Amino acid sequence: MHRSRFAGIIIDCQTEDIEAAGRFWSEALGYPAGPPESDGRYVSLDVPDGETYAAVQAVKHASRVHLDIETDDIDAEVSRLEALGAKRLGAVRSWVVMEAPTGQRFCVVQVTNAHFEATANTWDDE
Amino acid sequence: MHRSRFAGIIIDCQTEDIEAAGRFWSEALGYPAGPPESDGRYVSLDVPDGETYAAVQAVKHASRVHLDIETDDIDAEVSRLEALGAKRLGAVRSWVVMEAPTGQRFCVVQVTNAHFEATANTWDDE
Repeated sequence: MHRSRFAGIIIDCQTEDIEAAGRFWSEALGYPAGPPESDGRYVSLDVPDGETYAAVQAVKHASRVHLDIETDDIDAEVSRLEALGAKRLGAVRSWVVMEAPTGQRFCVVQVTNAHFEATANTWDDE
Repeated sequence: MHRSRFAGIIIDCQTEDIEAAGRFWSEALGYPAGPPESDGRYVSLDVPDGETYAAVQAVKHASRVHLDIETDDIDAEVSRLEALGAKRLGAVRSWVVMEAPTGQRFCVVQVTNAHFEATANTWDDE
């Protein structure tokens, strides 16, 4: 048995200027931006309590938006998603990058949101 | 003066099979799927109260994820976002498609979430 839930969105921006990218999305969405993290490649946005997270990330590939799913058991969650038709593309630090059968890439990450305990789905593992 | 907030995400899927796409994302994110709407091009996901919405949409272009911003004044919100550096690409039915300076497309839509009144940002118009 393991648990998971939709964790939030990462706004991937093909840019060398993470501060400008963070400023735009902070003002567009109305969420205050934190300071640049991870060697200046990441800016988190301060969303209201209980909402899924949003962050801005500098990337080399084309700009896009991707989803994160948070879980208390990454291997079990990746297996569950593979059984639904998603493909495991690889691991990056503590998370796993997957591709949906509909083509979008998304990440399976460790529990991040404080409301995970109260709101995550519970899945029976095979 | 007008108001806006981050409304939710639309999972754009290049597919002729909206039911299969809706089923995958429903099970992946753990949100029940509604019936196909809009001539079978749209499936809404039943997210918990107070969270931003998520929906799956069949599209002709490449699969991606896009954000919606909801507002009580679309023209004023589009002007605000243009002043931040976004471009207005065109209107589709009741919403406006824009492109962020970081390259992602997103939509400015009419108020949809019940928690808009309580949580939207207020902007002074010029």
